[in-house]
Amino acid sequence: MSYFRSVIEAMEGYIPGEQPRNGEYIKLNTNENPYSPSPHVIQSLRDHLSSHRISLYPSPLGDGIRKKAAEIYGVPEDWIMIGNGSDEILNLIFRAFLGKGDVVMYLYPTYILYRTLALFQEAEYQEIPFTYDETLPMELIDRPAQLKVICNPNSPSGTFFPIPQMEKLLQVSDCPVVIDEAYVDFSRDNCLSLLKTYPNLLIPRSFSKSFSLAGMRIGILFAHPEIVHGLLKLKDSYNLSCLSQVAAMAALEDIDAMWENVRKIRETREWFTRAMRELSFTVRPSEANFVMVQKGGGNMRLLYEALKSRQILVRFFPEWPDLLRISIGTDLEMKTLLNALYSITGA
Amino acid sequence: MSYFRSVIEAMEGYIPGEQPRNGEYIKLNTNENPYSPSPHVIQSLRDHLSSHRISLYPSPLGDGIRKKAAEIYGVPEDWIMIGNGSDEILNLIFRAFLGKGDVVMYLYPTYILYRTLALFQEAEYQEIPFTYDETLPMELIDRPAQLKVICNPNSPSGTFFPIPQMEKLLQVSDCPVVIDEAYVDFSRDNCLSLLKTYPNLLIPRSFSKSFSLAGMRIGILFAHPEIVHGLLKLKDSYNLSCLSQVAAMAALEDIDAMWENVRKIRETREWFTRAMRELSFTVRPSEANFVMVQKGGGNMRLLYEALKSRQILVRFFPEWPDLLRISIGTDLEMKTLLNALYSITGA
Repeated sequence: MSYFRSVIEAMEGYIPGEQPRNGEYIKLNTNENPYSPSPHVIQSLRDHLSSHRISLYPSPLGDGIRKKAAEIYGVPEDWIMIGNGSDEILNLIFRAFLGKGDVVMYLYPTYILYRTLALFQEAEYQEIPFTYDETLPMELIDRPAQLKVICNPNSPSGTFFPIPQMEKLLQVSDCPVVIDEAYVDFSRDNCLSLLKTYPNLLIPRSFSKSFSLAGMRIGILFAHPEIVHGLLKLKDSYNLSCLSQVAAMAALEDIDAMWENVRKIRETREWFTRAMRELSFTVRPSEANFVMVQKGGGNMRLLYEALKSRQILVRFFPEWPDLLRISIGTDLEMKTLLNALYSITGA
Repeated sequence: MSYFRSVIEAMEGYIPGEQPRNGEYIKLNTNENPYSPSPHVIQSLRDHLSSHRISLYPSPLGDGIRKKAAEIYGVPEDWIMIGNGSDEILNLIFRAFLGKGDVVMYLYPTYILYRTLALFQEAEYQEIPFTYDETLPMELIDRPAQLKVICNPNSPSGTFFPIPQMEKLLQVSDCPVVIDEAYVDFSRDNCLSLLKTYPNLLIPRSFSKSFSLAGMRIGILFAHPEIVHGLLKLKDSYNLSCLSQVAAMAALEDIDAMWENVRKIRETREWFTRAMRELSFTVRPSEANFVMVQKGGGNMRLLYEALKSRQILVRFFPEWPDLLRISIGTDLEMKTLLNALYSITGA
């Protein structure tokens, strides 16, 4: 017999993503940034270790980060919450707004965590088919729900929905709307400007992609203070370590370094997209640090495995076997991948 | 109107503990360790910053920590789970085992988080009055529940329940039993030896107290692999930052440094307890890194405030106004506190 809640018992076991630690792979599977964070981040971490005590609890609310982020993003401090990665923020949001039988709606395919979090809450998840254009499906806008979530740009496709589309969704929806901007720094625009007008808008972001800090687990949420206040009730008191807080602060202090890395990745994304199309892959227009590639609807598992045997990891999702998601690495990494593809496909 | 689940809406707002950052206080309010962690921890963090990329996701399961902890504690690796502090582990446990209306039982007063976590799950919490002796109340042992939790040693009293008491609870209870050993390194014994025999036993521990790593947010759980497997379904994929993992590993590698700090704190605790009793305070026998003090059942708020005005922070709980919880600091800090008490009470 099991002591677990039946919903947990019925779920699939957890399968950690492939995170080989020995550096023998070209890692294009989990959307990490191939460039280092600002040297100011590393220096600040070193300085902190010299001058501060890591035996003391960290700031519960991340006061320094909130202050700096408020300055940079033009949002008041009490509209900001820090998280142990944006995963923790999503986790708190689902627990805060969804009870048993409540409805959460999102496009599909998307970040698979949304479904997992809905299951934990015993909520009903309605997955609206993604149409791969820049128009939101009418059902997502019109239908009632207790929570709506859009990943913008979306994963695994990289599709970016223009702001007026989002505004329509916010106007019509009488529930919290999460616009998950984990990848937004790689896009042409973002939804922060909508925040003041729409009290039902929540914007989580991640420091794992554009800021090159996946190892430090840093997320940030922008939302109205009433929302932040409610979510803080659920948050563990000390959710972000002192060193992660130092890293986040330093990354914001040298935000130009992030933008320079983003610029390089966007450039690489553009030429790599063209090269893949020349190899007869279908590549969706992406505004993230990855691209989704397909080939005539065929199953991509063999290609994924062939690349892996050549020490190149890309992302194959068993749930969507007709696509691969390829993170944008350095120019050299992407050229190595292309050469492997030439060799595998005989092109 | 509010979008929050009614149970969240009805809860009190979050009040972060006092964590003054400017170092002007003697901090005896949140059970931090006054001594530094092993120098090997700081050196390992420095080395990691020189040689590794913090732009990559950390190990999902904390492979290195599990391996080292397995070696030290004599428990197989898959009986171990890492957490972002033991608070995260408790959080996962409550979510895994408690649905709406289920019963969680614990002694009271104790760690206040248990009640908060029960509320989030809409579970019924049964608080069994704590009797301040070393015998568990019969109701806790006999009555059915979906989850039972004992903090051993308990907070705020420091009371340690002997292992045979715990074994009785485990034998009779047909539900998961959490023995929260956050403070156990300061005690005469622990419950790890019961683990093999009782598949319903879960033992979370913290690196915040004995290991002097409160800033790094590290928790560890020991439980049967079926329990660990189920909890991992709920855990965020990357819940512990790369640097927190490095710190945990290094702390385990030089565990003697921890034991030396524990030895000093236990010595200080003993003479401080005697000194407080000489000042006519009632001090419960404590096996943790804090003591609970009372004075004839009187309200302790004024004393707390008088100490705070002298730059000494101890813990006053509005819920239990007749007691103060005082963390054990260095000998000098405790002498300064005693001098302040002489001066305040005119003794």
